[in-house]
Amino acid sequence: MIKAGIIGATGYAGSELVRILTGHREAEIVWYGSRSYIDKKYHEVYQNMFRIVEDVCRDDNLEELAEEADVIFTATPQGFLAGLLTEDILKKVKIVDLSADYRIKDVSVYEKWYGIEHKSPQFIPEAVYGLCEVNRNQITTATRLVANPGCYTTCSILTAYPLVKEGLIDVDTLILDAKSGTSGAGRGAKLPNLFCEVNENIKAYGVASHRHTPEIEEQLGYAAGREIMINFTPHLIPMNRGILVTEYAKLTRKADGSLPDWAEIRAAYDKYYAQEKFVRVLEKGVCPETKWVEGSNYVDIGFVIDERTGRIIMMGALDNLVKGAAGQAVQNMNLLFGLKESQGLELAPCFP
Amino acid sequence: MIKAGIIGATGYAGSELVRILTGHREAEIVWYGSRSYIDKKYHEVYQNMFRIVEDVCRDDNLEELAEEADVIFTATPQGFLAGLLTEDILKKVKIVDLSADYRIKDVSVYEKWYGIEHKSPQFIPEAVYGLCEVNRNQITTATRLVANPGCYTTCSILTAYPLVKEGLIDVDTLILDAKSGTSGAGRGAKLPNLFCEVNENIKAYGVASHRHTPEIEEQLGYAAGREIMINFTPHLIPMNRGILVTEYAKLTRKADGSLPDWAEIRAAYDKYYAQEKFVRVLEKGVCPETKWVEGSNYVDIGFVIDERTGRIIMMGALDNLVKGAAGQAVQNMNLLFGLKESQGLELAPCFP
Amino acid sequence: MIKAGIIGATGYAGSELVRILTGHREAEIVWYGSRSYIDKKYHEVYQNMFRIVEDVCRDDNLEELAEEADVIFTATPQGFLAGLLTEDILKKVKIVDLSADYRIKDVSVYEKWYGIEHKSPQFIPEAVYGLCEVNRNQITTATRLVANPGCYTTCSILTAYPLVKEGLIDVDTLILDAKSGTSGAGRGAKLPNLFCEVNENIKAYGVASHRHTPEIEEQLGYAAGREIMINFTPHLIPMNRGILVTEYAKLTRKADGSLPDWAEIRAAYDKYYAQEKFVRVLEKGVCPETKWVEGSNYVDIGFVIDERTGRIIMMGALDNLVKGAAGQAVQNMNLLFGLKESQGLELAPCFP
Amino acid sequence: MIKAGIIGATGYAGSELVRILTGHREAEIVWYGSRSYIDKKYHEVYQNMFRIVEDVCRDDNLEELAEEADVIFTATPQGFLAGLLTEDILKKVKIVDLSADYRIKDVSVYEKWYGIEHKSPQFIPEAVYGLCEVNRNQITTATRLVANPGCYTTCSILTAYPLVKEGLIDVDTLILDAKSGTSGAGRGAKLPNLFCEVNENIKAYGVASHRHTPEIEEQLGYAAGREIMINFTPHLIPMNRGILVTEYAKLTRKADGSLPDWAEIRAAYDKYYAQEKFVRVLEKGVCPETKWVEGSNYVDIGFVIDERTGRIIMMGALDNLVKGAAGQAVQNMNLLFGLKESQGLELAPCFP
Repeated sequence: MIKAGIIGATGYAGSELVRILTGHREAEIVWYGSRSYIDKKYHEVYQNMFRIVEDVCRDDNLEELAEEADVIFTATPQGFLAGLLTEDILKKVKIVDLSADYRIKDVSVYEKWYGIEHKSPQFIPEAVYGLCEVNRNQITTATRLVANPGCYTTCSILTAYPLVKEGLIDVDTLILDAKSGTSGAGRGAKLPNLFCEVNENIKAYGVASHRHTPEIEEQLGYAAGREIMINFTPHLIPMNRGILVTEYAKLTRKADGSLPDWAEIRAAYDKYYAQEKFVRVLEKGVCPETKWVEGSNYVDIGFVIDERTGRIIMMGALDNLVKGAAGQAVQNMNLLFGLKESQGLELAPCFP
Repeated sequence: MIKAGIIGATGYAGSELVRILTGHREAEIVWYGSRSYIDKKYHEVYQNMFRIVEDVCRDDNLEELAEEADVIFTATPQGFLAGLLTEDILKKVKIVDLSADYRIKDVSVYEKWYGIEHKSPQFIPEAVYGLCEVNRNQITTATRLVANPGCYTTCSILTAYPLVKEGLIDVDTLILDAKSGTSGAGRGAKLPNLFCEVNENIKAYGVASHRHTPEIEEQLGYAAGREIMINFTPHLIPMNRGILVTEYAKLTRKADGSLPDWAEIRAAYDKYYAQEKFVRVLEKGVCPETKWVEGSNYVDIGFVIDERTGRIIMMGALDNLVKGAAGQAVQNMNLLFGLKESQGLELAPCFP
Repeated sequence: MIKAGIIGATGYAGSELVRILTGHREAEIVWYGSRSYIDKKYHEVYQNMFRIVEDVCRDDNLEELAEEADVIFTATPQGFLAGLLTEDILKKVKIVDLSADYRIKDVSVYEKWYGIEHKSPQFIPEAVYGLCEVNRNQITTATRLVANPGCYTTCSILTAYPLVKEGLIDVDTLILDAKSGTSGAGRGAKLPNLFCEVNENIKAYGVASHRHTPEIEEQLGYAAGREIMINFTPHLIPMNRGILVTEYAKLTRKADGSLPDWAEIRAAYDKYYAQEKFVRVLEKGVCPETKWVEGSNYVDIGFVIDERTGRIIMMGALDNLVKGAAGQAVQNMNLLFGLKESQGLELAPCFP
Repeated sequence: MIKAGIIGATGYAGSELVRILTGHREAEIVWYGSRSYIDKKYHEVYQNMFRIVEDVCRDDNLEELAEEADVIFTATPQGFLAGLLTEDILKKVKIVDLSADYRIKDVSVYEKWYGIEHKSPQFIPEAVYGLCEVNRNQITTATRLVANPGCYTTCSILTAYPLVKEGLIDVDTLILDAKSGTSGAGRGAKLPNLFCEVNENIKAYGVASHRHTPEIEEQLGYAAGREIMINFTPHLIPMNRGILVTEYAKLTRKADGSLPDWAEIRAAYDKYYAQEKFVRVLEKGVCPETKWVEGSNYVDIGFVIDERTGRIIMMGALDNLVKGAAGQAVQNMNLLFGLKESQGLELAPCFP
């Protein structure tokens, strides 16, 4: 039984870790870290866990936790883990970090976009970017530190990855228009996240400045084999869960000037995803909907070729709290401990 | 492996049966019955099941299904099963009926409230009302036909049952004000269920005439030891899932004229539910919320005593598609086949 | 042109006052009071008012405002106005108070339910309870202080008033089950009002302890001619606006033991409301829906008689920010200044 | 008093016409056309109009209506008006057509995208495209036929128009990602528009094939001075009202290779919109939100320049039923009859 500790267990991502790990046959939670609710019963904070979780919340003590746990999930604000991580801790415990602290290899890019100093850049090189479908081979039982990808980024990257990798689209024309449910904004009591402000409303935010931009650029840049710059625009949607990313790019024309057809694009997706349990490339004519993946670890991908403009419209959907956060973190944990990758994640999406 | 067939597999209750049975280790679905989508792949109707269910929908052939299945779930309109059921079928297969056809013992009451003739009243006596927490002993491997309770009724009855049974409330003053998410209205394309008609709106419907009324009266009447009449008013709420019932009754005063206190009421609930996995009586001061049970088989119950008026306000919450339909149906199946009662139903509620 | 000042102009009720007064031909706003946003442009707080309102927010200076305005609307927390009101102020300006400070005649009842000391009980006797349809004759150009009714109370009282007044129901059996949109909870940044906590959820709150209870009891008590006690249970609904109250009571049987019929009940409603512009008693068989009154000053009322139980189910719906707050306040202002009562309030409900 | 007739008065756009015209001081509705509800009282179909509208619905008789009305609004499916319009009718009455029948000048484009034959192409040349802010001079008291723009198109065109007209963006890189509330899908009882299918969900639809595409291309093509092709992708959002369009394009670099700055772009918007009542170009850093325009005739526009990619992100928001349909139709009516353009449309947006 793997002993898991959670720092930030009372945020939405943390509580989703609790939900998933509660159903995981080979892991158990030994530490519900929550600075805001120390000594309070966890189920008093999340009443859904009444009679399921009896533990109380504990302080965010990373060192003590390293002694008790085999793996620590940090579902914490940016800078938290970077400020506390030590070699001593990493010798004792594996860490899956749901924050952005170790996602970006170039520390100056991190510091520029996040506006904070990185307190432990020495661990960045060894951190593995935990996008399992792309980096599976690097996530092994020897790995100590996994940088769990962001919710927008997981969806954005997986949707375009095969086409970028295969050179089928012009990455300089790549535009990502993303839409997210409100749980992505966290459980903090902020006016813009009040029901009456979000309901019956839609807006863009972080336009040309959202922090997930450099993360997407870095990862798709690896696939492209060069640095790239994209436009990424997130929108807030009046729903709890779900991210849909609509991506636009010019298709690379073939030698004869013609566009690749549907089957050729599909073949590229299949090359990378045909064996992937959690990536579902939809049938021709089907567009992804966030409701179809809700509560599950799936990413659904669809695409349409526009012959008129020579562009492809790619669409990806996932549950931001599962594949976009806690589910992917557990998927990484499974890889870190040599378990079946889908252990605890075989949840069918819940509809309606 | 229990072979299960579903008639009405493409309604919301039917699709929830599919979701739950897909995760059940000792049952498999052998028949996805759907008159509307014959020969269509099930996942084309419910895209959440893409890559999970590969079967096609089949006609609603009860006789053929009786040959293939060990248990049939009928998630069908009132009158469907009553019109087709035969002794021959019941000899071959167990049936869990999610419609109202065999819930009411007095056929004239059924015919009056539902406005249709009952075509096979001869099976009513043997049908067991499948409210597991109340009738568990009657649901055995010898049982052939289970009348799975309605969503409103499950919530309404379980919330009041211990107090009625123990004579702690005056049933003649019992008033039930119920609120339901829209999935309870089914997947039929009807104007009143359009998004724009339901969203940002609330209304009562079926006032003093809703068909779940006699079902509640019959079951609570058994608990009371006499015939009772109640007021039951359902309301449509702009949410997908969830039922909350708020129940009002005068508390029975003790010999000295005083009211029972919180601990006495709590003891009555505990007498019946302390050992029940799926009924959670909440701690003092906590009111149930539908979100805390979403996606799970739990019923959450809370209560407040109003010293001023001498009334108790009882509140119960459940997920209408799980404990209110498919989950309870699987709970019944587990009992019918001698399995662990919670098999396939150990789903933690999903929040937010 | 009546000069109006608003204290608490950046709460939801205050902003609705701005919306309504902006369209009022005989009033203009001269003071946008908001302690939280002093010197900030009002339209930066409420972007809907961009290019409509150019003023900046000002401090809550009641004395200065009394010099500048003809009428002050106080959309402030309980205790605010009571702590500042003086005879000097009332000599200069009329006040429509949207808080509860002067609604309850018995100051000990106020202090018990609100848990604060009342700082100026000397003004309670002269305050007129501004439920126009009931107290119209008392709201005259001589009135200085109007206690604008609460949202739940307006709906609760108007729905039952004629039947209580005419003795058609037994007030001791009166139970009010109320459902409100989330704007009633105000614009404060509190966790329970976050989108993800409210959406897809329903709960009761303030059970047997909500502060609107004594206000309803006092007003319906006047109608009954004696003190009464009721049960009032509010619920939070995932919608922005709207209140629906479902009320239950035993009908008073006639001398021959029979129940009053639909026409008799209807006649009682018509006696009080037939000439009322803003109270719409619906046709037989029609139940009120909050969406049908959204954005307007209407209260819609319907009822159903349950012959079986001898009870009547009354239902009332209004927009909590209009008839439940700002609209009624303007209706009162119109009466205070001898204007046409519906001036500025002739807004057709907005659907969908 | 202008006599107005509405064909299709019981659809959502038709009902919004009723709401707006009810508050219009110089127009009255003389005909509520609704093939589905002939002889039924209008307020029985739209209960919000109870005690406001007493008329019954009448058949869609264009000829008879032409005798009775000064102006006819046709809020009807594509092909309806084209199939009935005659010179005789146009001699008697002005028509504001809310369908697409006369929006596209090239009849072959219309027939290709709509998949139906155009039955009266002879009237296309005289029809004026009723985008008032762009074509105001062509909408005069001499005009007989106005093609009222679509909801997506109004928003899409107005958001980009000044920059296209001034050559500030490369129209070949223009991508429009649109998000719409569900009322845009109409009041037809269709499964995909059920509450449970839309709520907690988002999807793209009509990808690379939506019928508003050629309309946007035609109008922006006029501004560009040449034919253009764009990508337009609509998404369905779980809200009743509102459209947000996020538009992406490469900025045209200046002779020295630099990008235009914020002030230069703003100046271009001001050149066209500074005097426009219903177009609000927001202050720097403010992104439009649909809730800020709800219920009003405003279009809110904001933009962000991305120095990194050389693109501009333009955002426009409107209420699809007002400026996107009924409001704009009334704005056109006002121009057709020489009234003040904003008559009946001075509705402040309703928040929350």
